[in-house]
Amino acid sequence: MRGELPATVRVVEVGPRDGLQNEARIWPTADKVELIRRLVDSGLREIEATAFVHPKVIPPMADADAVSAALPRLPGVIYSALVPNTRGYARALAAGIDEMIVFMSVSESHSRSNINKTVAEALAACAEVVQACKADGKPVRAYLSTIYGCPYEGDIAPARVVALTQSLLDLGVSRVSLGDTTGVATPGQVRDVLGRLLDRVAPQQLGLHFHDTRGMAIANILVGLEMGLSIVESAIGGMGGCPYAPGASGNVATEEVIHLLHGLGVGTGVDLDRLLGVGLWIESVTGQSLSSKLLHAEASRLLSLVT
Amino acid sequence: MRGELPATVRVVEVGPRDGLQNEARIWPTADKVELIRRLVDSGLREIEATAFVHPKVIPPMADADAVSAALPRLPGVIYSALVPNTRGYARALAAGIDEMIVFMSVSESHSRSNINKTVAEALAACAEVVQACKADGKPVRAYLSTIYGCPYEGDIAPARVVALTQSLLDLGVSRVSLGDTTGVATPGQVRDVLGRLLDRVAPQQLGLHFHDTRGMAIANILVGLEMGLSIVESAIGGMGGCPYAPGASGNVATEEVIHLLHGLGVGTGVDLDRLLGVGLWIESVTGQSLSSKLLHAEASRLLSLVT
Repeated sequence: MRGELPATVRVVEVGPRDGLQNEARIWPTADKVELIRRLVDSGLREIEATAFVHPKVIPPMADADAVSAALPRLPGVIYSALVPNTRGYARALAAGIDEMIVFMSVSESHSRSNINKTVAEALAACAEVVQACKADGKPVRAYLSTIYGCPYEGDIAPARVVALTQSLLDLGVSRVSLGDTTGVATPGQVRDVLGRLLDRVAPQQLGLHFHDTRGMAIANILVGLEMGLSIVESAIGGMGGCPYAPGASGNVATEEVIHLLHGLGVGTGVDLDRLLGVGLWIESVTGQSLSSKLLHAEASRLLSLVT
Repeated sequence: MRGELPATVRVVEVGPRDGLQNEARIWPTADKVELIRRLVDSGLREIEATAFVHPKVIPPMADADAVSAALPRLPGVIYSALVPNTRGYARALAAGIDEMIVFMSVSESHSRSNINKTVAEALAACAEVVQACKADGKPVRAYLSTIYGCPYEGDIAPARVVALTQSLLDLGVSRVSLGDTTGVATPGQVRDVLGRLLDRVAPQQLGLHFHDTRGMAIANILVGLEMGLSIVESAIGGMGGCPYAPGASGNVATEEVIHLLHGLGVGTGVDLDRLLGVGLWIESVTGQSLSSKLLHAEASRLLSLVT
């Protein structure tokens, strides 16, 4: 038995930020912009474009202003960016970013290690940015990391996930994306955590954000869709593998999410072949193989279309 | 909402046959036997060991008799082998194989291309072997290929899948494994096809057999489990990618199936860390990277246990 699937799903492309931030090689600004142009051309309408963080902390995102200035502006296309604080927010606002993203972790040790703040301090920093966004009438959403487990602490209490999700929504973010930061979630756990969340919040207030580190992401997303969620975040090609572990998978691949959704009869507005073409383009630009299985299965068919 | 999951699932390891048959490099007999020994040692109890086919047709399986003679015999361990005809059956019987496997395709063009028989001729060949097995009191199961689509014909009518599954069960096979031969199935389609089959046959008479060519296998298996099926066939490391397409994925990786099942609270009798160790051993023996994401995610943790 299954719940009713949503008729359409919003697939949010996070490759230009969550993907490229974690790739071993720093991409030139022009290639980033070209990537985004091609993603939009495939039909994607929400793109996580960059992060306004300190360039010393995340060098691959040092060109946030330049990327933003060069974004192809098209009606209906929403560009979002990570902003860690009001300083980052001011930069993103000046750069014309459409939607801000605040972020924090459920795990104290991950929070300390990642942003050198306690969870309470991180929530306060989010609150400050969200308040500024509200004052400016600027849309803002949130990432909550290590939902399903933390590389330092291990298990995460679902009650803590529910409480912090509620706290972020109470601040006024449009949704909370549930980050499976290190790709540890399995479908039974996803069902459990989402079940507890849906006792308190609406499915439209939650985003599915899985990394395919252990091959479970598509099944986890299926569980989320069956429970009524309709926003999925993913990265073209499965970019975003850990830069220190070659071969490790990153975000779930956007093309595999689209393939899943179209197979379920769920509309996305994305032309899958065009999107796969973007994956081939990335491999030709970087000279590296992406982790997407679908991309490699379809590569020869696609190349026969263009040669 | 979901159906009740089975309390335990039988995971049938097909790597030594379906995996190695499709690898570019032919393994030495001693390595095949050592692989099987290690798989059994991890807790797997059903191993598809080899195929008694003509060595000119499938050269990697030319040593079927030698592999069978060297199999580690342990109580409760079942070794199965593919037998295309009564001649192959006689060899497998003499070699002490526990369970025979007949095979055929739903697709006329795949059947012609793969075994140079019409579907009707292939069913007749299966019938002949099954009859011989019954006369000898030998267990026999069946593979039905291209259930969810054919590389030559495209779509496959579900009514045809149901009719041929019923025909094979009527012959007297213990189960029919539903082969997603080229990895085209998506979860919505799996739900549809299984739903039609379960109107006619019991879930215990069906095996889930997916290739992870397009990254959908774990989600497809989840759907099957939720519909009451409790036999999953998989290959260690995801072996069995097409020999002519390097990087293409093969069978769903056994370790990812076990990870899914244990996460759902379903028992398998398999020690996952030991099984992952078998994957690392394969990579060390072959010098090639397997397609399993879980294996690479866990590799450094595993190696820290042994060094």
